[in-house]
Amino acid sequence: MQTHLRGRDFIGDLDFSKEEVETVLDVAFQLKRERALRIPHPLLRDKTLALLFFFTSTRTRSSFEAGMAQLGGHAAFIDSKTTQISHGDTAKEIGEIYGRYYDGIAIRHCDWGTGNRYINEVAQASRVPGLNMQCDIYHPFQILADLMTIFEKVGNPRGKVINVSWAYASSYQKPISVPQSLILQMTRFGMHVRLTHPPEYKLMPDIVQQARDNVRKFGGSFEILDDFDAGFKDADIVYPKSWGALLTTTDDAESAAIGRKYTDWITDDRRMALAKPDAIYMHCLPADRNIEVTDSVIDGPQSVVYDQAENRLHVQKAVMALTMA
Amino acid sequence: MQTHLRGRDFIGDLDFSKEEVETVLDVAFQLKRERALRIPHPLLRDKTLALLFFFTSTRTRSSFEAGMAQLGGHAAFIDSKTTQISHGDTAKEIGEIYGRYYDGIAIRHCDWGTGNRYINEVAQASRVPGLNMQCDIYHPFQILADLMTIFEKVGNPRGKVINVSWAYASSYQKPISVPQSLILQMTRFGMHVRLTHPPEYKLMPDIVQQARDNVRKFGGSFEILDDFDAGFKDADIVYPKSWGALLTTTDDAESAAIGRKYTDWITDDRRMALAKPDAIYMHCLPADRNIEVTDSVIDGPQSVVYDQAENRLHVQKAVMALTMA
Amino acid sequence: MQTHLRGRDFIGDLDFSKEEVETVLDVAFQLKRERALRIPHPLLRDKTLALLFFFTSTRTRSSFEAGMAQLGGHAAFIDSKTTQISHGDTAKEIGEIYGRYYDGIAIRHCDWGTGNRYINEVAQASRVPGLNMQCDIYHPFQILADLMTIFEKVGNPRGKVINVSWAYASSYQKPISVPQSLILQMTRFGMHVRLTHPPEYKLMPDIVQQARDNVRKFGGSFEILDDFDAGFKDADIVYPKSWGALLTTTDDAESAAIGRKYTDWITDDRRMALAKPDAIYMHCLPADRNIEVTDSVIDGPQSVVYDQAENRLHVQKAVMALTMA
Repeated sequence: MQTHLRGRDFIGDLDFSKEEVETVLDVAFQLKRERALRIPHPLLRDKTLALLFFFTSTRTRSSFEAGMAQLGGHAAFIDSKTTQISHGDTAKEIGEIYGRYYDGIAIRHCDWGTGNRYINEVAQASRVPGLNMQCDIYHPFQILADLMTIFEKVGNPRGKVINVSWAYASSYQKPISVPQSLILQMTRFGMHVRLTHPPEYKLMPDIVQQARDNVRKFGGSFEILDDFDAGFKDADIVYPKSWGALLTTTDDAESAAIGRKYTDWITDDRRMALAKPDAIYMHCLPADRNIEVTDSVIDGPQSVVYDQAENRLHVQKAVMALTMA
Repeated sequence: MQTHLRGRDFIGDLDFSKEEVETVLDVAFQLKRERALRIPHPLLRDKTLALLFFFTSTRTRSSFEAGMAQLGGHAAFIDSKTTQISHGDTAKEIGEIYGRYYDGIAIRHCDWGTGNRYINEVAQASRVPGLNMQCDIYHPFQILADLMTIFEKVGNPRGKVINVSWAYASSYQKPISVPQSLILQMTRFGMHVRLTHPPEYKLMPDIVQQARDNVRKFGGSFEILDDFDAGFKDADIVYPKSWGALLTTTDDAESAAIGRKYTDWITDDRRMALAKPDAIYMHCLPADRNIEVTDSVIDGPQSVVYDQAENRLHVQKAVMALTMA
Repeated sequence: MQTHLRGRDFIGDLDFSKEEVETVLDVAFQLKRERALRIPHPLLRDKTLALLFFFTSTRTRSSFEAGMAQLGGHAAFIDSKTTQISHGDTAKEIGEIYGRYYDGIAIRHCDWGTGNRYINEVAQASRVPGLNMQCDIYHPFQILADLMTIFEKVGNPRGKVINVSWAYASSYQKPISVPQSLILQMTRFGMHVRLTHPPEYKLMPDIVQQARDNVRKFGGSFEILDDFDAGFKDADIVYPKSWGALLTTTDDAESAAIGRKYTDWITDDRRMALAKPDAIYMHCLPADRNIEVTDSVIDGPQSVVYDQAENRLHVQKAVMALTMA
């Protein structure tokens, strides 16, 4: 157990060592059990956390806000549009000043080429932990929740096959942070990680390199496929979701045109049948229903999406308590 | 006293039996007294409630949010526009997921033909109480506050005459939920309920039928008038407010045109003089001043609108404590 | 020490006597020390404060919201656009009703000719303290924080020279509340107050008169200059910031045109060198960087802007605790 998380930032998945992640999960399971038993755990009584959002949120905001309250503290939901950031408050000023008011600063900023840099600038200027609620590069809390869910549903991930796959969606060009964080974190737990996507949907080369480096250090394997069906084959865990062709183009129309070449990349019962019989279906939500995945799969017996969403609460409470107590 | 409200939804006025409503009022009076005496009552310490709004709010949001804080808990004000609902989160997903983060889910969704269904879908999918902060059909917490106010100002409502009347307003087509909930709840307390409106401003037939059914079961009477002045005659309580002609037309312009035929439906001193001398004037606010009601009436000695608004706090705290503790 | 602040409004700077302001600072220093030592001070456990904003905010909202949480209470951030004020809720109704839900009402409303009147109307109708989070005339909490910072950095302000100066900015026509509140409050502490601005940037005559009256009562001096450089000369404290030419014109375009005559009113190293060697540079933020002030000054060793921003937290907690406990 690693006990030195107080005051630490959590911006990239690898900011916490594997052992530190295991400590987080350990605490998360305890907090989940205590909530089921209605045992109070006010570990952050009257502490405060800023939740600064440059992008919409359903699960992230609510799990952080409810989580802080359950820990006895208060999370302030701050829509960036209600601030004076557009009047000139710099990232450094936000870090300096929020760091003096709050006991932690959590930020979601998904703008491509900007978000991660912004969060780092704020965290560097602040005296309190900086937490990444999703940026253009990483979504580390989502992946902690995913990992917790895998431990619950599949058991020890070592040797299991996870298929991190692109899927088609029509709603908008989604960030690439989820697949990137998945291949970064899962390759530290000895899994056989498959990344499956059409050629235009590449991830950032240095993220892919770090995933490969992890395999050398922690075992398991990493491979990249471009055949949707092949990705499902004999997988223990399938995680097919859409993301934008951001490394190919940042033009929305062009990106949408590329996407339309792959409208058949939808997770359906036939594809699920290619995976292991007890494979689990994961998705961070929201999904484009019947475009990205059929109702029969996402609402079916192999889907663990609600437990996955729930575990956001528990892992985040664990990280907040460990870094801010 | 009915003590089995834990875990229950409150979406339609009749979801709680008459005795359960009496229990709510009993608790509400106690909480009101304790607040006056500054006696703390942290009955929901570190519990959380989602307040999901698809529509603007002054009283509802603040009375729920302040009420939860006074009970030791936290209410998260969530403007639906800041969520990913428009990116695809379904009602079922909101229910499943918020139900795991929060200890209760309160929703305001007034869209005609949609709001009530949405709230029911969320509540059905969730493991925690679903509370209706106003939909297209019902506004049950408003009416609990109204009932509490009637008990305070008029005493036992049995045998009293309440005039639930339409009035003209120019600002916008308001929901019909207040008059509908009024005739549903008040007919369970032995009142003589008058519903007064121009022919185009009918309420939903099955709501009217339920009001008639209540009269058969609980005594009192129910009648429908179409003469504004007649509605005031000898009433103990007058509750004239505007609502849209939704059962006649859902076209805003057409509805406004219909309304303009009845601009003389304004509550003024002459009309108030038709009611009993000690009659009280009620309104859930906001009112179109000097269009829907004159300043002299709404600010006059018979008006109880501020106590009515205050009682939102106390009845809601009672329901939250009884359902979520 | 003055101990009779319970229940009091704080709207204009002079609503609190000089001795009452000293009591606020006394409490603020204690709360600041306790926060550094992690000593809990839940002086407002389960109390609530409405934060009603008609204008964007970074520091004000967060310092009030975090401050209330640190005191054990809850502040509700209310964007006026999410309320039904545009549907007709009057200032009196907001005061009456929020005053029954919350234990205090804080408002930011900077519209010229409207803001202060609105805050006063709400406060007059409410039974709880009304706190001014900035209006068109005053920004009293900012100046309490400034005063606390001066005590920390300069020591007793008596006999010190403070230059409250206009500066150029291009972003938008900023309120005149900060310079007005500065000359009102600082003239009560025996300072030599210089107000420096181009002729078009006059402050309200009665505010200037009150500043002169203070000098007669409390000592020190007050003078008005129109030479940017002269304002810096031998000052102990420089506070150059932009404000709108509101007493000359309320037309945005015309105001911008006037401003462009004075683009050289930028605080730079040469100007800072005109002040005392140990002079401090103050700004309430956000600043128009390299337009209103150079990075070298605002990020330099004489700048105290972050401590100034931090002290918002401590003085506001002191006022909230003293008025709302």
